[in-house]
Amino acid sequence: MTPASIAPDGSVHSIPSADAIQLDLEACRAISGEYRAGGRKTVVVQGLGFVGAAVAAVIAGARDEAGRPLYCVIGTDLATPGSYWKVAKINAGCVPIQSPDPSLDALIAEGVREVGNLRATASEGAYELADVIVVDLPLDVTAWGEAPEAQTEIEIRLGAFEQAIRTIGSRMRPDALVIVETTVPIGVCEKVALPILTRCRRERGIEEPVLLAHAYERVMPGPRYVDSIRSFWRSYSGIDARSAAAAGEFLRTFIDTKQWPLWELADTSSTEMAKLLENSYRAVNIALMQEWTLLAERTGVNLFEVVESVRVRKGTHDNLRYPGFGVGGYCLTKDSLLAQWSASVLLDNGVELGMTLEALRINRKMPLHTLDLAAEAAGGSLAGKRILVAGISYLPEVADTRNTPTEIFVDALLEAGAHPVAFDPYVRFWPERPQIELAESLAEGLANCDGAVLAVPHAAFRNLTAEALLPAGSRLSFVVDAQNVVGDETAASLHRRGIRVAGVGKGHWRKLGY
Amino acid sequence: MTPASIAPDGSVHSIPSADAIQLDLEACRAISGEYRAGGRKTVVVQGLGFVGAAVAAVIAGARDEAGRPLYCVIGTDLATPGSYWKVAKINAGCVPIQSPDPSLDALIAEGVREVGNLRATASEGAYELADVIVVDLPLDVTAWGEAPEAQTEIEIRLGAFEQAIRTIGSRMRPDALVIVETTVPIGVCEKVALPILTRCRRERGIEEPVLLAHAYERVMPGPRYVDSIRSFWRSYSGIDARSAAAAGEFLRTFIDTKQWPLWELADTSSTEMAKLLENSYRAVNIALMQEWTLLAERTGVNLFEVVESVRVRKGTHDNLRYPGFGVGGYCLTKDSLLAQWSASVLLDNGVELGMTLEALRINRKMPLHTLDLAAEAAGGSLAGKRILVAGISYLPEVADTRNTPTEIFVDALLEAGAHPVAFDPYVRFWPERPQIELAESLAEGLANCDGAVLAVPHAAFRNLTAEALLPAGSRLSFVVDAQNVVGDETAASLHRRGIRVAGVGKGHWRKLGY
Repeated sequence: MTPASIAPDGSVHSIPSADAIQLDLEACRAISGEYRAGGRKTVVVQGLGFVGAAVAAVIAGARDEAGRPLYCVIGTDLATPGSYWKVAKINAGCVPIQSPDPSLDALIAEGVREVGNLRATASEGAYELADVIVVDLPLDVTAWGEAPEAQTEIEIRLGAFEQAIRTIGSRMRPDALVIVETTVPIGVCEKVALPILTRCRRERGIEEPVLLAHAYERVMPGPRYVDSIRSFWRSYSGIDARSAAAAGEFLRTFIDTKQWPLWELADTSSTEMAKLLENSYRAVNIALMQEWTLLAERTGVNLFEVVESVRVRKGTHDNLRYPGFGVGGYCLTKDSLLAQWSASVLLDNGVELGMTLEALRINRKMPLHTLDLAAEAAGGSLAGKRILVAGISYLPEVADTRNTPTEIFVDALLEAGAHPVAFDPYVRFWPERPQIELAESLAEGLANCDGAVLAVPHAAFRNLTAEALLPAGSRLSFVVDAQNVVGDETAASLHRRGIRVAGVGKGHWRKLGY
Repeated sequence: MTPASIAPDGSVHSIPSADAIQLDLEACRAISGEYRAGGRKTVVVQGLGFVGAAVAAVIAGARDEAGRPLYCVIGTDLATPGSYWKVAKINAGCVPIQSPDPSLDALIAEGVREVGNLRATASEGAYELADVIVVDLPLDVTAWGEAPEAQTEIEIRLGAFEQAIRTIGSRMRPDALVIVETTVPIGVCEKVALPILTRCRRERGIEEPVLLAHAYERVMPGPRYVDSIRSFWRSYSGIDARSAAAAGEFLRTFIDTKQWPLWELADTSSTEMAKLLENSYRAVNIALMQEWTLLAERTGVNLFEVVESVRVRKGTHDNLRYPGFGVGGYCLTKDSLLAQWSASVLLDNGVELGMTLEALRINRKMPLHTLDLAAEAAGGSLAGKRILVAGISYLPEVADTRNTPTEIFVDALLEAGAHPVAFDPYVRFWPERPQIELAESLAEGLANCDGAVLAVPHAAFRNLTAEALLPAGSRLSFVVDAQNVVGDETAASLHRRGIRVAGVGKGHWRKLGY
């Protein structure tokens, strides 16, 4: 029996045999050779997840002044059940992940089907073809156990990353440039990647210093997915001056650096730290608002109005966040952990990022506050209630469900004896929680539930009227607005019809007795 | 013997007798009557400190469309040794506090000497003359004892504030508007000021609801002192709709609301919270950088460079702060305490602002990190060393020394057995630490010290050359740059001359062995 790889959309892709992979490589080699003959380089993107797939597409879309493709681009991922579907999808000319940005579909379709300069393969032989290798691997990070309250050690397993770097080191051309785009703990490029590459190359008789750079990505899966790579700020650094120069030159070929000039930092520790700091900054400011959310609710204050009034102070106070449901995604939930792990393990320098980590703990528990509001609105207990959770993704207008706070929320609902039903216009299949019942539409979900929680500010959930929230035959008894999508007028109207309404950060509703 | 009131500049002002105060009031009454006869109102500003003195000056400078003064303005403060000097200074046409904004001097001189619509008095009778009473009192807040490490209860003594409000209530005209500009714990206007005013007025037979508003100040003592009142955002709220409308109408007469439209919030709790939140936001983000400062230093990273690279993300990341020496002033060091005190005492709602308060603890200890760098640069111990501390005020180009981190720093130097010498081009007299030796100039201080700490980024301390830092005959052996005012070139030059150099957030210096 051939093992299969199943994509999140349910499509099944058989994993090729070693011979088939070899044939695949030959196809890549042919294209690469053709490009090389025309004086054009080959770029291999290692890892075809949310970042790598989009980066490969953008690089394949790079053109010279005459409009000719600059690169042959080969994406690589593993021939495993968990990963191979990404290779198969790209070779079929499709975006492997759910994406709301049509320009990403267009780029991949063009590269694979029209221009023919974009392919994917599971063969490690691809690294032998590369002039530039872009590393877009995920890291395996866990902390604080499963329960939001638990506070165990931070664990980062670099094994897969190290193995991937070893594969590169044992295959790469001597003069190829390796650019790590992955968000890594501070010190990883210098103390982990560099020694591995140097050792693997020495074993092959290559004494020449490797070209190694770090240029962390700021990819934002969403309607501006492609722009978040091509038309956005990018910082980079090299392990030495040659590496930095080579990285800068490469990045300029596919990033709009006229509008978004590159930032070169002094060393790879600086860029590694910059990425972790910018996401920690965000996480801390979300946690700050969570503390003040409770205060505002119990004081009867509309915190959204207060935040708006403070944010007018542009440049000093306009990064203030809003109250909300929770924090998800791949970055904000973990990047501070990478920094602490560096301090505690890799660099062992005794620094404790106490407040920074406290923010992550606060954010992890955030969805439980909405649960408290729901329980209160339900009269004390959620046991036996059918609760519609409107919104699964961790951002509005996005299909991305990684670490979504809705996950923590539905788990807590189950724990409380409730029956969660989820609906998200962007999510037809929820890979992390396949057992949760999904409604076909908001109206269907509302019709059959005792209570509804608006968890994600998708446009489809904004400014709903009381009528829209109460379809005919509804037995809805409460609505919790965790994202400021219900206006005061609708809240008052629901209240008049005997529906209890609560809102995260909306103390004024509480004051009015809603 | 007549008791005297001594100003921070050392000038002595005798406290007037009751009869003299009465005469003073008669003078105020005469001016007020004259203005009233001309259809113009009288504004009394209660409290003539850093906020009240400037607010009184700005209101006195308000003009109608024909260029005529809109108001007779009377500033009030107490006939006590600690306060009377402010009354005396204003009546002499002078700015009572040290101010680097010449437009404030001009406003006060004009109001007192030329136009004659600005006076100050210690008489409580002034409140009887007022159409508008602006409350600019300081609050007495302490927490965590004297030592930065101690963590005792938060104590807020509202006694003086309550007494001042009682004075207003027992003297005010029935239809006068009371505007509290003081930063107060959430709930104070509604639960403290309103009941006092209502009771005092009832005792006088006034049943009509009082006009009471909150419009917190954002006064920034500095070169744009006047602009921080007249040309800046202002939020306000009323205890009821009439009060809010009256406050908005009054504020529009002296704030440039064309460029800085007013923000009306729903209730006084909202504006009270807004002020505390905006300063807590600032404090938390400074604390975040302090945690990362240690990480950057020990990792060899120049954190200033990293922060610059992240701050290009305008609107989402450009409020990121920089590493530094510490946090001072009247607001950032205490405003979060007011919020917690509200939650714990006044509102008793069980909210714990854990991370917010942790930030204040981190910031309080911040200057001790510079002490660690100094001790390390001194070879381990500061005992017996003369250390120049360049900068006393808590902000650049400002004379304000309230809660300056330099205070914590020199106290710690004394504790360590060192001899601190301070210099600040804006501070000729340091009221909170009169026993600390002050140098006459930077050069004099540098000439006679073993080490120097650059604590405030005054322009005079920026971009100093190695030559400027090492005057002839200097025995200086180290320099600590706590404010990124020393460039890399100067650091390298000092290092070559055998001077040890350290910088807060400048891990790259440490990496280079400076």
